[in-house]
Amino acid sequence: MYYLGVDIGGTTIKVGIVDKTGKIIASSFIKTEKLPPEKQIEKVGVQIKNLLDSNGVKNSAVIAVGAGCPGAINGKMGIVGYSSNLKWTNFNLRENLEKVTGKPVRIANDADAACLGEVIFGSAKNYNTVIMLTLGTGVGGGIVIDKKLYEGPNGMSSELGHIVMKKGGIPCGCGRRGCFEKYASATALVRLTKEKMLKDKNSKMWELVGGDIEKVNGKTAFDGERLNDKSAKKVVSKYIEYLGEGILDYCNIFRPDAIVIGGGISNEGEFLTNKIVKYLEKYEYGYKGTPKSAVLIATLKNDAGIVGAASLVAEEF
Amino acid sequence: MYYLGVDIGGTTIKVGIVDKTGKIIASSFIKTEKLPPEKQIEKVGVQIKNLLDSNGVKNSAVIAVGAGCPGAINGKMGIVGYSSNLKWTNFNLRENLEKVTGKPVRIANDADAACLGEVIFGSAKNYNTVIMLTLGTGVGGGIVIDKKLYEGPNGMSSELGHIVMKKGGIPCGCGRRGCFEKYASATALVRLTKEKMLKDKNSKMWELVGGDIEKVNGKTAFDGERLNDKSAKKVVSKYIEYLGEGILDYCNIFRPDAIVIGGGISNEGEFLTNKIVKYLEKYEYGYKGTPKSAVLIATLKNDAGIVGAASLVAEEF
Repeated sequence: MYYLGVDIGGTTIKVGIVDKTGKIIASSFIKTEKLPPEKQIEKVGVQIKNLLDSNGVKNSAVIAVGAGCPGAINGKMGIVGYSSNLKWTNFNLRENLEKVTGKPVRIANDADAACLGEVIFGSAKNYNTVIMLTLGTGVGGGIVIDKKLYEGPNGMSSELGHIVMKKGGIPCGCGRRGCFEKYASATALVRLTKEKMLKDKNSKMWELVGGDIEKVNGKTAFDGERLNDKSAKKVVSKYIEYLGEGILDYCNIFRPDAIVIGGGISNEGEFLTNKIVKYLEKYEYGYKGTPKSAVLIATLKNDAGIVGAASLVAEEF
Repeated sequence: MYYLGVDIGGTTIKVGIVDKTGKIIASSFIKTEKLPPEKQIEKVGVQIKNLLDSNGVKNSAVIAVGAGCPGAINGKMGIVGYSSNLKWTNFNLRENLEKVTGKPVRIANDADAACLGEVIFGSAKNYNTVIMLTLGTGVGGGIVIDKKLYEGPNGMSSELGHIVMKKGGIPCGCGRRGCFEKYASATALVRLTKEKMLKDKNSKMWELVGGDIEKVNGKTAFDGERLNDKSAKKVVSKYIEYLGEGILDYCNIFRPDAIVIGGGISNEGEFLTNKIVKYLEKYEYGYKGTPKSAVLIATLKNDAGIVGAASLVAEEF
């Protein structure tokens, strides 16, 4: 028996057949087209049928379908309120997917689904209450309480990158200033790295990017630290401080069993988490003297979209 | 049929007989003594018996007992991990209260219980998912999701005053700097008021405190604004900005049905909430363009301890 995970993005729509352990046994993708959403989902119906057929999986072996989608989703209602990537507005995704598959469907915001995927099938499967922070272009978030996704009573919760850490600080796309994501995203780390490099022309980080500052990425400062570069160390230390402060905030709010770090920066693995834990342990109140939260690296990586979507139905069906 | 609400404080222990609508029909208090906690709870047993007897309520009319207690509480286990007010450590409050009452008991941190009280019986009874901010000496917090208290998997969550709003800002008792409560508590408002008064010797706020700056309280700036005092208006506006930013943070995290404001500052009523809503409505992303949260004033006031405690058992029994 299998679940289907549908990962709807602005560029492609991926579908995967996922077994009960969270393993993708087959997957396919189609391009996202500029179609009315109903028509697009009809195409997903065909995509699903083809995927099942070509892998010899009977339709009756499919238990249920989960779908993750960018934008403002109301999971309870099954509705995509608005997705700027897809240009969908007030679209009943659940109903339409149920029509083309004949299976029960659950939908969620894709970042939320990825978080649940980590808790059901990934890094945090031994934990129940988990906060996920995805460190990429921005800082994405997910909240899972007792193995269930928290999405807010009307959806659109868990914008964990948008709490103000530095009042009056860097302007944020959300309209406020000094949001956590302006200091803890991969984008922020790149900014901090560039700023430091411009102040230290002798930093080894210049070699790492072949003298071209535009080649700085979220790995540059960490690589520099591994080469024992003093400026790189300072950049990483500053970044960990920002990230650590945000994590302490979420510890004080939720005291979760675990914090899962995802996104590009999470590729640093234990090199990153060891530093984070060391920072957190400075604080008796927020971390050391209170129920501790494990700090984990997300493990689903590129499978997070499909497996996360499948996890939306894995506990219920 | 009734609930009993037990409000355990460092100075007094209050017990109330609470009906199914959340009304206290009778209550009594005893002094908190320096006793081993087991002995103290035996005395509460006597207090309960006397209260029931003197009000002609039969023991069989009591359904269940809820108890709120300051400190680090593990509600699931029924244990007071540590309470600095009471000097209790790892005390099984639930078991001991069950022994002396013969009724099912649920316990929680007192601030958490007060929040649940507002949702079950108070200002937020028409709402399911609610964040409460208590603006007093510090900023206390409570989280209720779908009419259930969120306490963290091992308790000690919901320290909503301890998120960093101004990194590197005012040192906080928790060990970090720039916590929300340093800018949004009544204490913070008093500080802002005094600072402004010292800069404006002509402010009407001086008359309000009879020329004695030590008489400034959380009402002074609001009273000054009502007298149209320019400096008072600036103080209030600054305070609302801090408070509003914190509320926007919690909107972005939870998108709750409602935010309930409690504590001394909440006595300002709609004069306060109107200002907060006006501030929140500036922000499309955090408030206006997303599912809106109602902003309410806590209504249980002095009954919050007993009624909040009773609310811990009101949904289950």
